[in-house]
Order: sequence, then structure tokens, then C-alpha cells
Amino acid sequence: MPAPRLSAAAFVEGLLAGQRGVLSRAITLVESTLSADQALGQEVLQAVLPHTGRSLRVGITGVPGVGKSTFIEALGRHVVENLGKKLAVLAVDPSSQRGGGSILGDKTRMPWLSAHPAVFVRPSPAGNSLGGVTRATREALLLCEAAGHDVIFVETVGVGQSETAVHGLVDFFLLLLLAGAGDELQGLKRGIMEMADTLCITKADQANEQAARRARVDYQSALHLFPPAPSGQVVPVLLTSAVTGAGLPETWATIETYAAAAQASGYFAQRRAEQQLQWFEEAVQQALAAQFYGRAGVRGALLSVRAAVAAGQLTPWAAAERLLGAG
Amino acid sequence: MPAPRLSAAAFVEGLLAGQRGVLSRAITLVESTLSADQALGQEVLQAVLPHTGRSLRVGITGVPGVGKSTFIEALGRHVVENLGKKLAVLAVDPSSQRGGGSILGDKTRMPWLSAHPAVFVRPSPAGNSLGGVTRATREALLLCEAAGHDVIFVETVGVGQSETAVHGLVDFFLLLLLAGAGDELQGLKRGIMEMADTLCITKADQANEQAARRARVDYQSALHLFPPAPSGQVVPVLLTSAVTGAGLPETWATIETYAAAAQASGYFAQRRAEQQLQWFEEAVQQALAAQFYGRAGVRGALLSVRAAVAAGQLTPWAAAERLLGAG
Repeated sequence: MPAPRLSAAAFVEGLLAGQRGVLSRAITLVESTLSADQALGQEVLQAVLPHTGRSLRVGITGVPGVGKSTFIEALGRHVVENLGKKLAVLAVDPSSQRGGGSILGDKTRMPWLSAHPAVFVRPSPAGNSLGGVTRATREALLLCEAAGHDVIFVETVGVGQSETAVHGLVDFFLLLLLAGAGDELQGLKRGIMEMADTLCITKADQANEQAARRARVDYQSALHLFPPAPSGQVVPVLLTSAVTGAGLPETWATIETYAAAAQASGYFAQRRAEQQLQWFEEAVQQALAAQFYGRAGVRGALLSVRAAVAAGQLTPWAAAERLLGAG
Repeated sequence: MPAPRLSAAAFVEGLLAGQRGVLSRAITLVESTLSADQALGQEVLQAVLPHTGRSLRVGITGVPGVGKSTFIEALGRHVVENLGKKLAVLAVDPSSQRGGGSILGDKTRMPWLSAHPAVFVRPSPAGNSLGGVTRATREALLLCEAAGHDVIFVETVGVGQSETAVHGLVDFFLLLLLAGAGDELQGLKRGIMEMADTLCITKADQANEQAARRARVDYQSALHLFPPAPSGQVVPVLLTSAVTGAGLPETWATIETYAAAAQASGYFAQRRAEQQLQWFEEAVQQALAAQFYGRAGVRGALLSVRAAVAAGQLTPWAAAERLLGAG
């Protein structure tokens, strides 16, 4: 039997009291494709909005094999156990299907975090559109903040378009890398290196440690040849091990130092405001596109118009005009 | 007295005959904001479409001071004088105002190219919207191809959003850098390094030559730590001097080798087709946005809605809904 439907007021009360069950159901609401759910979800979001924005939002990415789950488990444990933070772990993975291999679908990936009462772990929303998945994650992030989570990790897969989206919803972006640059870079999306606020070399232990130290020197030299980050802050390269715990306190200290400096300079608030406006503009754009591409005439004409563009028979602008005429 | 208005057929005939005056007027047509001009421009574009696509499109960027004009002048001269190519030089610079400091407004910047009959040099279209400027440049590029220009340089300023736009309309992207990384990187847009298909270190002559050689080694090492280019091809670092001419034939040979390999692998055609579809999708999006933001109700509500989002009083999604309701 499904739980009885909550009112908006009950959702808000439960969220602000930090009730995990309510948080989980509120996220399900904003992920829902049913318009009644969405309306209720938006009402709840709007009501809790004054209670959002107080967390530190950290994006974490890296290719499969870099040890992302164990890194998040270990860093999260440090943050919760030693610093008393209330953590939420979200994910953006447009390729994931709920129940069919989501990057956070398996709670055995992060057993300690998943079992801890101060931690809320949520897999990526299902969906094929990056825009939809990103929006749901942004809304989930706000709901987690309303529920009192003061650190939010947003995990992404490191190989597609989703990193840019995640970069647009966090305060700090962490890129995980393996020592011995080469094979693992094959899978990494180009451009991602320059989004990072910090690089963490993972598995820097035992037989890997020497290679990791060399990799750090190499990356540090390389970063000097790069344009500076928009924050104006240096991008450090850290050695970490989820096994020994090495580098994890330093990683967290780096994030906090960064945030403090960004707050002091005004960059933090400015970037948050820019992100909010960007979400707004994307929301308008997505709504306009959804209206337009939802029309039967447009759907009917789209395939042939696209084919004519791809074949070079129609200029992109003539094609756009034809499609607009079909709407 | 203005020249008499040409018919679409006269434009097409003049373009295909490679008449510079007609090319220039056709570009003015597609840059125009008058709807009659635009309609005629689109008719011309559509008619010449089968005669486009045969050039090699090369994006060239770098911060002010890197020697972009002299590099383009020297590389262009090599391509025209030694290889017999017909060159066009276009620019994307959304900050430029015609007559008020456009990056290509001053023909004294490239005196040899500007005076040569096989070269067509055109400043950046004026306009404050990147989308509008980019579209005009894309259309100008197609018109240049129809007029028989088989090499097109698209210059951009290297410090804003325009590089991504230019990357989306060329086959090959060249980043110019100065030796002695440091100050000049301050102005460079982060992320641009990873878009480059080749790095050219400029002013590698006289007292600069040793520093340039060291810089090449450094950049080569750094690039090994990067994810590979989507083309699968290595990103070379070349030393060039517009004064001595050193490195310019090698630069052009690199571009041709790249293009031949990309053509053989199918990457070239695939990327062109993707770019065409991307232009099409952007054209649809821009038209939808122009319709929407052109409505009086939307224009009236926009400022207050944006302010509410920036102040955190309204969720981005509630704000979007309010704005959509105002339309």
C-alpha cells in the first residue's frame, strides 16, 4: 500500500524537521512526470526556498575505475564522522535508468554512508534528457538543503555532457584522476580538466604511491600553463587514498579554504546568483522547446527537416523556418 | 548613390563567378536586420548551398598581444602566394561595433592580405548578441565558399564565449600562445586550451627563441596529461615567427595533414554534419526565444522576475512559469 499523499504543508514541515522519509518523497515528487506531482513539488520548493542555499555544494567527477565510490565513501565519512556535517550525495547521470545500473543505484557502493542517519544518498534520476535529469538534481539539491544537509556531493560520470551541467550547480568542482596518465584519460571528456577547482589523484598508496607523486608534479606543472580559474584561486593537486585515508582531511580543508576565500571575495555569492539566473533561463528555454517540439506538426516534420540539413540540401536557417512554419 | 539592388539570381551568378563586390554585398544582406534583406539573403544562401562546404575552415584565436594579425597575415600570405589558395578571413567578435574598433575593422592590420585579389577580408559583424554575430559569420562563411574561397580563417578574440561558437563552425582550431606562460594566460578563457587542435607559439625569434623552445617542451608535456582530442589526433605544439616566417609552412602542413586524416577516418564529414545540425537546432531555439522575448508582456515582466530569482525569492522554475504566463 503506498503511503498516503502528503499536503504541501506536511511536506514543508517534514522537510524543515529533517525527516528523511519526507525528503525522499519530496524528491520523488519533483522527479515525477505527472503534472499534479510537479505542481505540488513546485509549491513545496517555493515554500522551502528561504531555507535553501546554506550548504557547500561539491561536484565530484572521474572516469569509471578511478575509485569514485570509495573516494566519496571515505571523504563523506571524514566529513560526517570527524566534522559532524550532515551530508547528502546526489548524482547526475543521464544514461542511468532507475533499477538498471544507475551510478548510485547500488547502496553497496557506499555502505557506510548509506547506513548513516546523517547521510542522505540518492541515485541519479532516470531520464534520457540531460536537461530533465539536471533539473531534477537541482531541485533535489534545494530540498536536501531545506532538510538541513550542509554538505552536498553531486557525483557525475566524467565522460559526457553532464559535467558541464554539474559544474553549473555546484560551488566547487573536484576531478579525480589516476596516476599514470594514459589509459584512463581516454575516457575523460576533453575540457573537464579546466573546470576543476582541485585535482585529486586517487589510489595513492602502496605500489602506486611513487607514480602518484610523479603524477602530482606533472599535473602541477601542466596547470601552470593553463589560464587561471575564474575564482582566481590556485588549483591544487592532492594525493589521496581511500584505503589509508591519506589526503582526505586535506581535500576537505582545501574545499573549505576555497569556499572561505570565495565568500570573502564575493565570488561565491556572485557565482550562486549567476547559476540561479542560468537555471531560470534554461527553464524558460526548455519550456519553450517542450511546447514547440510537442506540437504534432513539428514532430511530423522534424525527421525530414533534420535529414535535409544533414544531407546539405537545406540551410540550417531555412530548415528552422520550415519547422517553425510546421508548428 | 547606393548600388542598385540585385535580384537573387544576380547575387547567385555574381557569387559563383567569384565577384568580390557581390560577395561583399551578399554578406551585408545576411547581416542586415531588415526583413526584406534577410529574406533575399536566405534565398541566395539556399540557392548557393550546393556550392558550399568545399573549403578548409580554420579557427584562429589568442589573446590581444599574441600577434594574431601578423600571424594571420603571414600564414595567409604563405597559403595564397606559395600554395595558390583563395583565402577568406572572417571574424567573430560580439563586442565589436562596426567602425568602432572591430578586431578586423582596420585593414592596416593585414595590409598584404587586404590588398590581394585572391583574398577576401571581412570584419566581425556588429551586434551585441553572440548568437546573432555567430549566425552572420556562419552565413558569410558559406557565401565565401560559394564564391570559391577554399581556405577560410575565422578569427576570434580568445577571451570570451566566442571561441566555443567559432569551434562549432570550423574544421580545425588553432590556439596562438606566447612563450613565457604567465601574464598572457591571465586573459585567456579557461577551457580554450582543450579545444585546440594545434598550439602555435608566436614570436619565436631573436631573443624569444630560447624561451619559446622551453615553452614548447612544457606544453607538449602538459598535453600528454590531457584527454585526447575527439578527432583522435595528437595536438602538436609549433614554434612560429611572423617576422622570419619560421614555422608557417609547418603550421599549414599540420592543418592539411590533420584534414586528410580526418577525411580518411570519416571524422571530418561526421563533424560537419553534427555542426550543421547544431546550427539548425540553435536557429530554432533562437527563433523561439526571439518570438517569446519579443512579446510585450514578457518584456514587461522579465526584469522583476529576474530580480526575484537573483534575490532568491522565486525558484528558477516558478520564475519561468510566471514568465511563460506573462507571454
